[in-house]
Amino acid sequence: MSEFFNVVPPSLGLNILLEHLPSGAIRPFENIPIGESLHRVTAEDLLSPELLPHFARSTMDGFSVKARDTFGATEGLPSYLEIVGEVPMGTPPSFSLNTGEAAIAYTGGMLAGEADAVVMVENTQRIDERTIEVMKPVAIGENVISPGDDLDIGDKVISKGRHIRAQDIGALRAIGIQTVPVVKQPTVGLISMGDEIVPTDTIPKDGQIRDINTHTISAMVEESGCIAKPFGIAKDNFEEQLHIAQQGIHECDVLIFSAGSSVSTRDLTAEVINHLGVPGVLVHGLSLKPGKPAILGIVNNKPIFGLPGNPVSAMIVFDLIVRPTLYHLSGCVNPPMNNTTTATLSLNIASVPGREDYIPVKLELQGEETFAHPVFGKSNLIHTLSAADGLLQVPLDKSGLYQGEVVKVKLF
Amino acid sequence: MSEFFNVVPPSLGLNILLEHLPSGAIRPFENIPIGESLHRVTAEDLLSPELLPHFARSTMDGFSVKARDTFGATEGLPSYLEIVGEVPMGTPPSFSLNTGEAAIAYTGGMLAGEADAVVMVENTQRIDERTIEVMKPVAIGENVISPGDDLDIGDKVISKGRHIRAQDIGALRAIGIQTVPVVKQPTVGLISMGDEIVPTDTIPKDGQIRDINTHTISAMVEESGCIAKPFGIAKDNFEEQLHIAQQGIHECDVLIFSAGSSVSTRDLTAEVINHLGVPGVLVHGLSLKPGKPAILGIVNNKPIFGLPGNPVSAMIVFDLIVRPTLYHLSGCVNPPMNNTTTATLSLNIASVPGREDYIPVKLELQGEETFAHPVFGKSNLIHTLSAADGLLQVPLDKSGLYQGEVVKVKLF
Repeated sequence: MSEFFNVVPPSLGLNILLEHLPSGAIRPFENIPIGESLHRVTAEDLLSPELLPHFARSTMDGFSVKARDTFGATEGLPSYLEIVGEVPMGTPPSFSLNTGEAAIAYTGGMLAGEADAVVMVENTQRIDERTIEVMKPVAIGENVISPGDDLDIGDKVISKGRHIRAQDIGALRAIGIQTVPVVKQPTVGLISMGDEIVPTDTIPKDGQIRDINTHTISAMVEESGCIAKPFGIAKDNFEEQLHIAQQGIHECDVLIFSAGSSVSTRDLTAEVINHLGVPGVLVHGLSLKPGKPAILGIVNNKPIFGLPGNPVSAMIVFDLIVRPTLYHLSGCVNPPMNNTTTATLSLNIASVPGREDYIPVKLELQGEETFAHPVFGKSNLIHTLSAADGLLQVPLDKSGLYQGEVVKVKLF
Repeated sequence: MSEFFNVVPPSLGLNILLEHLPSGAIRPFENIPIGESLHRVTAEDLLSPELLPHFARSTMDGFSVKARDTFGATEGLPSYLEIVGEVPMGTPPSFSLNTGEAAIAYTGGMLAGEADAVVMVENTQRIDERTIEVMKPVAIGENVISPGDDLDIGDKVISKGRHIRAQDIGALRAIGIQTVPVVKQPTVGLISMGDEIVPTDTIPKDGQIRDINTHTISAMVEESGCIAKPFGIAKDNFEEQLHIAQQGIHECDVLIFSAGSSVSTRDLTAEVINHLGVPGVLVHGLSLKPGKPAILGIVNNKPIFGLPGNPVSAMIVFDLIVRPTLYHLSGCVNPPMNNTTTATLSLNIASVPGREDYIPVKLELQGEETFAHPVFGKSNLIHTLSAADGLLQVPLDKSGLYQGEVVKVKLF
């Protein structure tokens, strides 16, 4: 059982955890209809089964020609070509060009038979119904996309491990792909712990509070492309917690405890994780505020997290540690990046070197400048959650930030 | 029929459109279970029906005391207090303090009766089983959250027009809210136009290509919190397009045409929009590359867009113009911001002043530095779509960007 009881910086904590995990390559995959594949992760390289385009297409409105007929053309000494027809959109040409002939061509349309280039309409002048002047020569293949220019058969369209975006759907649709092999979504078990915690649909008695974390963390799990599976609320009792945790680790790929906030209950979480299996707790405490009491562990190759009970702290640890771990499990090489912006700080902020601080801020646009106003509240109250537009990071090595400084804000 | 046939910058185009639209305040709303409200938009201010917390809670592990008993305490001359009990988590106290007494208190737990402050355990020393030394005085209310400190009854928890995030769900759950009034999601009709376009599940014949835009734009519509309603493919025929457009404008809140790419079909789109109703086409052409042939219009207070047929162009115009319009329709004051990052440009890029250029780039992390590599391809081929991590913007007033410059990249 390897344990580190000294706090570590969040990025080091994440690395310690990831080093102990097998790569995401081994996760099972499934084939799903392309219409359901948005935001899933590809399980293998996707290769093109077709030539794209499968016919030569014009990239301009103009005239398909034999390039040779335009060689040497200038405004002063243009080439004269005879218009012998038009190739309508969506159909193959019904005729071929002879020397000195041209055919009307549309962007995305086919060229006439024997044509090998397209002259832009802007470089031509209409003399009469059947004749154009070409005022600029074109090379063979100019203004034409040839078969396979975009994708050849067997070309890689999307690599393994890519988070599928709207444009990827477009690329796959273009080559007729109907089903996509994707990594199965990890299932994340959620256990709220604490004698004071009651379900959100009940009226809390004196001393009790509603279970917020199951719901905020469920939402974040789903935003990270995983399936949230809540296991309810466990009392501050070792046997009860161990029992529900054993069920959770059996049924899920990842387990998240949201622990009670007192010292005694935090120690209970670590004890439960260590009893679940090996290696157990790997990191106990992060140099992070809020979020210090976080616990990171692994049991049977499955990541287990003990998040602080405070909802703001739990969300920050999720964002810094849990979310990247979930994408790692899927072998995802391009997880959606954290959305950040820059803003001018409206107040001095004190911090402690050696600790990463995150301060909820409200953003306000004044003219062209965005200001970040810290939202203060005793012990990260609920309203600081909903009032904030983002989190201001005070880096590990800083003792504070000054009013007027341009700072980085993580939107959330 | 007000029409502007000169191209306008994208931001001006958006403003012209929004000025002609009624504010989002008039959209209908519905009450939905809170568990389904993530990423929806609130239809009214949400007020707290409860005090939060509804009892005085300790913010520290330590001892609840009468503050007066600690006044003047120092390390040299501590106050001695008798421990008369413990208030377990989740339960009210079963006893009250007399002068000179203290009770064990936990973070988030209640204070003993008659206690008015909490001494942090770090500022105490245990003398024996029943006695502590307090080495630092506390003021009345110190380390305590009083009832309503977080939210009072009637306090605004979330304003009208907010895009609901994970933390908002948490805040609403905390005060027992079970249903949320949200703006009804706008329905966006999609019509692909072009004689060459065929459904993606068919094998295109010579001259035909698969309908990509219905699928990329559907995905983007859904990512913007709206409902996509595809109306299929219309031929390059005025009567057919007008008929399907009339059906679309009748059934939907917004209509998006993805037009053919040739000049003649673009003009057809404008004609169809102008025949649908007034004011019709407002903007015909943007100073944007790719994306210039975009059309923005309004009919019966419903926005109508003619997107270019090229999939890359269509996505860029959607991002710059359609997405903000959709959030405007819902009266959303905090739409999720466009995700941007900065990177070092790996090549010189030429542009034209007076035009906004967007160039697909691949991002590569080398050590601490992120490089943006332009992905070139004739006429924005499909593979440029899936190969790119984002779009590099060349601002309106620039004639290009230089290798080594730090540039802003819009992730997509």
